[in-house]
Amino acid sequence: MGPHPAVADVRRAVRDALADLSPGDLVLAACSGGADSLALAAALAFVAPRANIRAGLLTVDHQLQEGSKDRAVKVAETAKAWGLDPVEVLTVRVGTAGGPEAAARDARYQALAEAADRWGAAAVLLAHTRDDQAETVLLGLARGSGPRSLSGMARRAGRYRRPFLHLGRDSTESACEALGLDVWDDPHNADTRYTRVKVRRRVLPVLEKELGPGVAQALARTAELARDDSDALDEWASKVFDDCALSDIGAVVTLAVPALEGLPSAVRRRVLRRAAIAAGAPSGALSAGHVMAAERLITAWRGQGRADLPGGVGVVRRYGTLVFAPAPENQA
Amino acid sequence: MGPHPAVADVRRAVRDALADLSPGDLVLAACSGGADSLALAAALAFVAPRANIRAGLLTVDHQLQEGSKDRAVKVAETAKAWGLDPVEVLTVRVGTAGGPEAAARDARYQALAEAADRWGAAAVLLAHTRDDQAETVLLGLARGSGPRSLSGMARRAGRYRRPFLHLGRDSTESACEALGLDVWDDPHNADTRYTRVKVRRRVLPVLEKELGPGVAQALARTAELARDDSDALDEWASKVFDDCALSDIGAVVTLAVPALEGLPSAVRRRVLRRAAIAAGAPSGALSAGHVMAAERLITAWRGQGRADLPGGVGVVRRYGTLVFAPAPENQA
Repeated sequence: MGPHPAVADVRRAVRDALADLSPGDLVLAACSGGADSLALAAALAFVAPRANIRAGLLTVDHQLQEGSKDRAVKVAETAKAWGLDPVEVLTVRVGTAGGPEAAARDARYQALAEAADRWGAAAVLLAHTRDDQAETVLLGLARGSGPRSLSGMARRAGRYRRPFLHLGRDSTESACEALGLDVWDDPHNADTRYTRVKVRRRVLPVLEKELGPGVAQALARTAELARDDSDALDEWASKVFDDCALSDIGAVVTLAVPALEGLPSAVRRRVLRRAAIAAGAPSGALSAGHVMAAERLITAWRGQGRADLPGGVGVVRRYGTLVFAPAPENQA
Repeated sequence: MGPHPAVADVRRAVRDALADLSPGDLVLAACSGGADSLALAAALAFVAPRANIRAGLLTVDHQLQEGSKDRAVKVAETAKAWGLDPVEVLTVRVGTAGGPEAAARDARYQALAEAADRWGAAAVLLAHTRDDQAETVLLGLARGSGPRSLSGMARRAGRYRRPFLHLGRDSTESACEALGLDVWDDPHNADTRYTRVKVRRRVLPVLEKELGPGVAQALARTAELARDDSDALDEWASKVFDDCALSDIGAVVTLAVPALEGLPSAVRRRVLRRAAIAAGAPSGALSAGHVMAAERLITAWRGQGRADLPGGVGVVRRYGTLVFAPAPENQA
């Protein structure tokens, strides 16, 4: 008799995610003790030795809740009992920048990255499921910042890999149940002050009810297609940028206007965005509105002056070029 | 004292939509008698004579509801009283293909197109608002067919123009109220058997409540950005298709595999889609899954056989080419 179907699913997902690694490589699972990441860690402990991969676990103590340290220690003990090695509790201090969700995420990823470097890990596995992806797409949709924000989380990004992005949360929960694992219920997952929790508890159920089941799958599929589209356009914009960037001295970027005139707007805006960032505009603060103001120097040129971009960067049109210049105090 | 702000908004929107037309051109407003299209017709009647544009109105009697003919006649009389000319009631028979919403829409657009041809109209104005656009995006999202289906309705498509796509439904309703217009409440707009009505009445209000106001604007902005992205990728795919289509005899389309190998997937799939349609596959039936099956002949080639596409079209790989061939009975 084989394993429970959900257990087989999570193991297969992890096996596929490791297929390109070499014998002896180290893979670390990031695990909170919740159903998703506990299923991930259990699957990794099963799959890795059979693939001659070394497997360990990282668990983050955010120090935000009563008993968070005990919980982290318990996850670490479970992992050691499964034969995972190394196993490390990463204790972080969460700041306040960007709100509680963003601050916790930033602290977590920084700790994971440092630990992965320290242990020389070839990959870090994250347990995000299709349901997390659907939530991310809806959050991006509510921001209205276009297809890039709809593309959700990447299956792979740098050393991070997300083997469960095609699996529903019901699979990880069933796998934990079938394996008799003691799952931690994060009280934050019920705290509807968090926008993500509102999306999970109040928005997605209404979408499922009114538009039919399968909305989470549809959102995850949208994310994948939107990501493919954005990647292709980024590639096109990168080629155009390399072709039309006349100079790149210090942080001053000069683009040839004629090379930008005949382009589709979606590509032209990406080139302008790239130039603005190269000149020092912080990417997080650079809105579609800023980029459109720069674009009007090409598409609605009537001799207007400098367009201001975040970070003190300005762009002016001079003799058939666009000059992106950083704030004076940042110029070399 | 100027007009009510909402009246000014709808008039400005119509004026902008007509800016590129020539004196003497004929513009027809499509009008159901509901708030959106009544505001549109009233704005057209005001704006057109001042721009030396001829303006008329078309109203469709779908013959689906008791009294639909009386309602159409009443709209026509109002339009004539405003000086619109020509004014025509288009009586259509709604079929059943694709469900009641799609069948009514198909019948309506066919009648509008025929009437526009008959009258030699330069443009037909449609009254879809930002709220309609937001609903369309959510419906596309639920289908999960990617950025193209998120791009909603175009501001312009052929002879159709949608001047109100950036205005909320509250603007058209306020304009009608300020002008003292007698608005028709379509009972279908309260019938929650229609998916669009469910989205309007049950989904969007929940999104607004949980994610904050401005969700409709965010969805409409997403539509615009997604449309720009899709247009750019279609342009890229069209160039690649022209370059790598070796022959196009009858409906047999042959593509050079090497020209497709290095492309981003988003572009390659669009080229394959184009080839499949050129070979006779009905675009509505051609899913992402079909296109991916054709793509595997390039990206996962291991000597596999023919991939079947809708409409009896098949694609095989032979000597470094992909051959898209129609069903035998359709071959010349």
